[in-house]
This record gives sequence, C-alpha cells and structure tokens, in this order.
Amino acid sequence: MTFQHPFDQAIALTPTAEGEYTGSTSPAYANMVGPFGGVTAAVALNAVLQHPALLGEPVALTVNFCAALADGVFTATARPARTNRSTQHWVVELAQGGSVVMTATALTAARRETWSLDDGPMPAVPQPDALADTVSLPQVEWVRRYQTRFIEGGIPTNWDGGGASSQTRLWMRDAAPRSLDFCSVAALADVFIPRVWVRRATRVPVGTVSMTVYFHAGAAPLTELNHSWVLGQARAQAFRNGFFDQTAQLWSEGGHLLATSHQVVYFKE
Amino acid sequence: MTFQHPFDQAIALTPTAEGEYTGSTSPAYANMVGPFGGVTAAVALNAVLQHPALLGEPVALTVNFCAALADGVFTATARPARTNRSTQHWVVELAQGGSVVMTATALTAARRETWSLDDGPMPAVPQPDALADTVSLPQVEWVRRYQTRFIEGGIPTNWDGGGASSQTRLWMRDAAPRSLDFCSVAALADVFIPRVWVRRATRVPVGTVSMTVYFHAGAAPLTELNHSWVLGQARAQAFRNGFFDQTAQLWSEGGHLLATSHQVVYFKE
Repeated sequence: MTFQHPFDQAIALTPTAEGEYTGSTSPAYANMVGPFGGVTAAVALNAVLQHPALLGEPVALTVNFCAALADGVFTATARPARTNRSTQHWVVELAQGGSVVMTATALTAARRETWSLDDGPMPAVPQPDALADTVSLPQVEWVRRYQTRFIEGGIPTNWDGGGASSQTRLWMRDAAPRSLDFCSVAALADVFIPRVWVRRATRVPVGTVSMTVYFHAGAAPLTELNHSWVLGQARAQAFRNGFFDQTAQLWSEGGHLLATSHQVVYFKE
Repeated sequence: MTFQHPFDQAIALTPTAEGEYTGSTSPAYANMVGPFGGVTAAVALNAVLQHPALLGEPVALTVNFCAALADGVFTATARPARTNRSTQHWVVELAQGGSVVMTATALTAARRETWSLDDGPMPAVPQPDALADTVSLPQVEWVRRYQTRFIEGGIPTNWDGGGASSQTRLWMRDAAPRSLDFCSVAALADVFIPRVWVRRATRVPVGTVSMTVYFHAGAAPLTELNHSWVLGQARAQAFRNGFFDQTAQLWSEGGHLLATSHQVVYFKE
C-alpha cells in the first residue's frame, strides 16, 4: 500500500467514459458546509488534465460554485469545446443527483519561450522562517491541510467591527509535503479567508460564487519548486449589494509570480 | 424608422428557440481580424439577458475567445445550468458553421441592500473636459465607436522598445450617446489597448483568450449614469510564455467602482 497525499485523494477522479468521471468529496477537506472550494476547483481542473485529448497546459481556469456540494459522490464531465493548433478550450461541469453544482471553463495551451516580465516586484515581506504557524480557523477541517504563516490581514482577533484594510498577506503550502502543480495552485488561490471578515472585523455568512485563476508558471517550474512556500496576497476592490470581489497574487519564494486570481463572493448583510 | 444605436445593432439576437439565437457581426465594430472582442462578450451576455427564464442581474461574466469570429452570422445558446433562490448560473456558447467560437459562463443574482464599500478611492486624474479626444488606432473601425481621452499609457508614439509601465488610464464612453448598461460595461472592459504594446513599445500580434467582468453596479445606477464618462484603469501583472494578464477597473465620473475585470491575452514573441 502506497501513501497517497490527502490532496491527491480529494481530487481523484475515476473515468467512466471519455471525459466523464466520478469522484467523492474528502472529509480531510471539509469546510463549514460541503468541501473546501479550492479543492472543488482543483477537481474541475483535474477533469481536464485527465482527458485523453488534452493539449498543452492550463493557462486559465474559471469555476462557478452553483451550489454547496453535499458530502459524497459527484460526477464530472470535461469537453474540449474547441481545439486549435496550440490552444484548447474546455467546458466542465460537476453534478450531484442530476443537479449541476459547478460549471467551469478552462484554457490549455502550449507554452513557448517568449519575452517575459513580472510587472511589479513581489512585496517586501518577512521570510517564512521568521514567522509562526497560524491556524486561521481551528474548527474547520480543511484549514489543517495547509501550513499558513500570516504577515497581515489574518482572522481578526476581535470581531469588533474595527477592520481598516481588506488586504491579507501570508505564506502558505500543503501541510503534508507535496510538490506544487496546477491543481494545488488552483486550490491555494482559494485559501485566503473572506475579505469581508478582514475588512469589517465582522463575521457574516459568505460563499464564493465564481473564481478565476491565471497560471503564469508552467508545469516544469512548478515541479522544481517542489514543496516550497507560496506568498499569497489578496484584497477586495468593492463590497456592494451582497457581493464582493477579491483580487489575488501568488508568488514563489524566489519572487516569481506563479498565478493571479480573482473571485466574487456572496455575503449576507 | 427608428434610430438604433450601432452597439444595439451589433449585439442584437433573434431568438430561434428558448435560449437559442442567431446574430451577425457588425461592420461598425470590425477589428483587425473579426469583430471587437468586447462586443462579442456583450453578445454572450445579451443571450443570457434575453432568456425568458432569467433571474436577477449580471454579477459575473467570463468569456473565452476560442477562435476569431468570421464576419457574418453566428448562433448563440444560453442555458441556465442551475437556478437557486436568488442566484442563477449560465453556460453560453457562440458558434459559426458548427464550430464553437466562444464559450462563456455568467452569474446573475438578485441585488440586495447591504453594507457596501469601495475599498480604495478612484485615482486622482484630470477630468475628461481637461483632456483631448485621442483615436488610439485610427485604422481600426471599432475604435471609432468609442470616444476616448487618454490620461496615461496610450498607444506608444514611438515603437522603440522603450516602454516602462504597463498601466493605462483613460476616460471612455460610446461615441454616439447611449445609456450605460451591463452589455456596454462588458464591452468597455475590453476597450484597453494591449498591455504588451504599452509595456514594451513594441507591436506584436495579440489576442484576448479569456476575459472576466465582475459587475459591482446594478441596472438602476447604470441607467442613472446615462451617457457619462467611465474612467478605465488597466495594468498587467505578468508576461510569460506567450500570455499576459490584464487587471482593470472601471469607475463612474463620480468615483464609484462600476466593474472590475481581468483578462489573459496571447502574444507572439
């Protein structure tokens, strides 16, 4: 019996036909209701990556959280809607009991050597070794699957309505060693705690409804990074009429931008 | 005969069945190859807005440009993948000659009065009256459908490889008066010139492959704004392996954040 990382267990899919799979939510990534959304996003991406017609590597992924997943089995379908010479467009759906619980689109492409530039440096922050582990939400199971070291904008210690900034910066990585790859980056993009909690120091019900990840690093550089830390930065731009946005960046320890991500989140009150 | 705004002509869809439409590209919005992508994004959104089962207003839209549209007719399909009590998730496709040219997803929802905040002020910029009109790409037809007044990061005057920043700021609006709405905001999110041209002062072939728009303002505030100016700000975060990203904000003249948008763009060399 070989050890399987809990993340690989959580995103595992069993093919039932070309582009059709079954999977199951993982208790190791349980959220307050249903599983951690970052893992569900990774499952949608994995349905593309497991497809025999796959061309290239992920460049963009958009997932839409249509409903909270129930604990248990789900089906996934991935369809290459358009295949070009060097790019491929995917449509993905996850369903439970015949009802759609996630829609997604993805772009995969052949990466080429070109002129390259990160437009702006990684923020100057303390190195992970200089910081202590923080478990942001001890009562939530999936949070324990990540090692997190907050620099700013962690879970408020006083829920007193006194928040002043929506920005969070933290170092993060899988708690159990696992090399970085596209699926784990997609999940890391959703590790940030809700912006509205940080900005307001007020705990209101929230739920991500749509998330996009742009992958700036290819498969080889991610593999080379192995289990190293990722610096995450997230902030909101607007809270309005029950929804807020989050714009986020993920850098390698060496300061390379690995991914940028955006999401829009429902909030109550 | 009543006057129809060229934008309304360009995004017009004729229903052929529930959620199925035909449309046609508009010469008024011709790009270098095919139509202006912002209008195609607006068409995808319009397929949702025209659907008889529509619930609520757009909150998020992601469009994937799978192939350059040929001039002429196309079909559009919009399907409500999941309808909840106050949110609805849509899957949209545009096709020509049986091949998919765009995939899209959208979230519509009932907007409610909640605690609201723009996290960060609109940048301090000169008012539109203090600036002159600039036609950024005189040889491109769609550019003439917009009135644009650049503050910074316009089309380089010298293509000498000497660019230093990827940021563009400009005031923009439809050239012919038309009230703002969700479709026009979706199109405005794509009016920015390619980041790689601005950053490098080098003209290389480009094409947007995926764009997301989060709508922070509802229908009523957009209608109230009527034909007023919109401040657009866009910058790139990474150029790597043939793709770069763009993160953008759109504000009303009064400084309210109307929408945030992101896209990933193919570039050659």
